[in-house]
Amino acid sequence: MTTVELPIRSTSAACCVGEACSPITREPLGSGGATALATVLKALADPARLRLLSMVAAHDGGEACVCDLTEPLGLSQPTVSHHLKVLVDAGFLTRSRRGTWAYYALVPGALDAVAGTLATV
Amino acid sequence: MTTVELPIRSTSAACCVGEACSPITREPLGSGGATALATVLKALADPARLRLLSMVAAHDGGEACVCDLTEPLGLSQPTVSHHLKVLVDAGFLTRSRRGTWAYYALVPGALDAVAGTLATV
Repeated sequence: MTTVELPIRSTSAACCVGEACSPITREPLGSGGATALATVLKALADPARLRLLSMVAAHDGGEACVCDLTEPLGLSQPTVSHHLKVLVDAGFLTRSRRGTWAYYALVPGALDAVAGTLATV
Repeated sequence: MTTVELPIRSTSAACCVGEACSPITREPLGSGGATALATVLKALADPARLRLLSMVAAHDGGEACVCDLTEPLGLSQPTVSHHLKVLVDAGFLTRSRRGTWAYYALVPGALDAVAGTLATV
């Protein structure tokens, strides 16, 4: 499986998807902005990845070790690590290694930026 | 190609995705809610469908004929009709037939409901 560098990573958390920073219903969405936003939404559009984001957010201190995330999902650690990598690459999670384990935290503003592109009000 | 009945259709526009009505970062997302939200996000996670939503919203009166949507996208009418059907089935667009053409409008609150599940603030 290959992973791609998603546009969200190279821009600020407050403006996640390049051309598509404005709500899509406020102004016509160009081809580039649509592709960028679709790529970011694809990274979210997976049940395991949505649950991982939710679990990281709910964890003490807003940070979770991969060792805390595997068992509740009922998936193998390589599978969980793959999903975490997709979320890191898409700019939704940060990853830091301390000792044996990698720890994950939400990137502030990243989910809100995507929400802002969909909100109409 | 088969289409599935997405959860958004059978619930109110203000609460689109069953168990996943709350922001995913506010409380742990269960398996059912994650699957429902992922299904709805998959319907959005396509450049052509995002542009169609944007074009319908920008159209006079917030309603557009399929005949207005095909040329700007540079896709065939059957392809555009397929993407519109996915958006109708997912609860993001309404479809009404008048004379020769089908007209599409945004379902009020549907995009905002999805945005609300992603927003952290």
